Amino acid sequence: MSQAQQAASRQSDFAEWTSLVQAQVDTALDACMPPSGTIPAKLHEAMRYAVQGGGKRVRPPLVFAAGELVRASATALASAAAAVELMHAYSLVHDDMPCMDDDALRRGKPTVHVRYGEATALLVGDALQSQAFEVLAGGEGSAASRLAMVSLLAQAAGSQGMCGGQAIDLASVGVALTLPQLEQMHRLKTGALLRAAVLLGASCGPRALDSAQRAALESYANAVGLAFQVVDDVLDATADSGTLGKTAGKDAQDNKPTYVSILGLEPSRALAGQLRSEAHNAVAMWGDDAIRLQQLADLIVQRKA
Amino acid sequence: MSQAQQAASRQSDFAEWTSLVQAQVDTALDACMPPSGTIPAKLHEAMRYAVQGGGKRVRPPLVFAAGELVRASATALASAAAAVELMHAYSLVHDDMPCMDDDALRRGKPTVHVRYGEATALLVGDALQSQAFEVLAGGEGSAASRLAMVSLLAQAAGSQGMCGGQAIDLASVGVALTLPQLEQMHRLKTGALLRAAVLLGASCGPRALDSAQRAALESYANAVGLAFQVVDDVLDATADSGTLGKTAGKDAQDNKPTYVSILGLEPSRALAGQLRSEAHNAVAMWGDDAIRLQQLADLIVQRKA
Repeated sequence: MSQAQQAASRQSDFAEWTSLVQAQVDTALDACMPPSGTIPAKLHEAMRYAVQGGGKRVRPPLVFAAGELVRASATALASAAAAVELMHAYSLVHDDMPCMDDDALRRGKPTVHVRYGEATALLVGDALQSQAFEVLAGGEGSAASRLAMVSLLAQAAGSQGMCGGQAIDLASVGVALTLPQLEQMHRLKTGALLRAAVLLGASCGPRALDSAQRAALESYANAVGLAFQVVDDVLDATADSGTLGKTAGKDAQDNKPTYVSILGLEPSRALAGQLRSEAHNAVAMWGDDAIRLQQLADLIVQRKA
Repeated sequence: MSQAQQAASRQSDFAEWTSLVQAQVDTALDACMPPSGTIPAKLHEAMRYAVQGGGKRVRPPLVFAAGELVRASATALASAAAAVELMHAYSLVHDDMPCMDDDALRRGKPTVHVRYGEATALLVGDALQSQAFEVLAGGEGSAASRLAMVSLLAQAAGSQGMCGGQAIDLASVGVALTLPQLEQMHRLKTGALLRAAVLLGASCGPRALDSAQRAALESYANAVGLAFQVVDDVLDATADSGTLGKTAGKDAQDNKPTYVSILGLEPSRALAGQLRSEAHNAVAMWGDDAIRLQQLADLIVQRKA
């Protein structure tokens, strides 16, 4: 094969792999949700609505890619990835509510509160968070490792993780943040759950990481988490709503500080590229086992939506 | 001692015991919350506000009382009880929000959204739920038993537990429920977490319950859970806001079905008394070890607020 053919083959192979991951996680999500019609039926319908519907779904592949480092089984990874997706879905439902971002469109569809009402949206988010812990606790592996995963996810979701980031975000509207402050906000708001996805995947055993390996994987997770947000800000400033599947230009409209508003557009793109390199280098020690992690760093930086 | 003196002594002993339980749980709650000033400071302040402040606090004593059946340690019970209180506190914060019950007063103080704003209230509830799982996962005991406790709490909180009950409640405004439908709603809305409190206490080991004992404890938990709600409805219809520490007469005003509206006042009081007897009988097999559980059934039925 020519180099171009090899590149094309790996690319198609990656696309196949992500499709397979997605299918496994969709099956796990479907299985963990009560059958449709289960009382209360409207709540369960709205929970499925919140979880389904495509979107970029970058977290499940991160779980599976990190799982390659420890030779984790697909079923263990699928339940960890489902837990992360449930947590992510809950956060989107609550973030979209009128008292937060007040967004009417998500993944190209009406948001949960627009479709089912605010009270149901509140409960959908609450119930999805509980479900995330139920799935994780009921997954594969030793009790000790599952318990560690519960702690990890709880910390990533809580007041010094995702919720904490949201709180800082709320307090930042119309405020001139410094770059370190912006980074701190995103490290919690989006980064904490992306980091958890990576670390949960690497917790699905049977192998375990030593402390140097864990530090390397943390560096990868931090770089990728930050890159994700930088690219989000670039896309919010440059793409249209149809491509994004959510309202574009919302940040500027809401007077929110972003990488683009602080650094400018081109420096933001350069930063994303630099973080991609950092992510690649952090996991280079694993050689071929880290190819999926590296491809995901590429995907996160090069995505168009 | 005369019979009257004995009764007085047990009564004062019970009051001392509940104070001691409360102090241990308050210490556990204080220890699990990030120190004040931790970023984001406003979120952490609001979380503490939501958790503190007295109230009837019936769940921690239930955890400790059930723990007597298995000779559980005070530290194991304190962390399980703290987890239940965090979950309960989150549910109150979200229930009080404008899109739900829209209540301005709770435990005699302004509700969290009135004091800190709706967006912060939403995040406070979300973060308290995460914290509940973090505390439970980080508690005492074997990994297997802690993991089982995480599952138990997640189920009690989720779409077929507390959140499910709230969803049925939402759908019931202005609807003429039958008594079984009302019971089903409360079994989920309030009963699930009260049941979890009892079962978590009995999961704090070192002893374990056999299946007959567990079934007996479930009967106790169900009777007490239902009694709690029947009495709540009676108080809502008869007490004043000052005594309740929340807005009285809210149910009738909101056109919500209650035991009082379906059964009438005196039959509701009679039902509460009958459930109290059921609770007593269910745990009679434990003899003196069940005294706290029986006293709590009395407290739940005889409370004035």
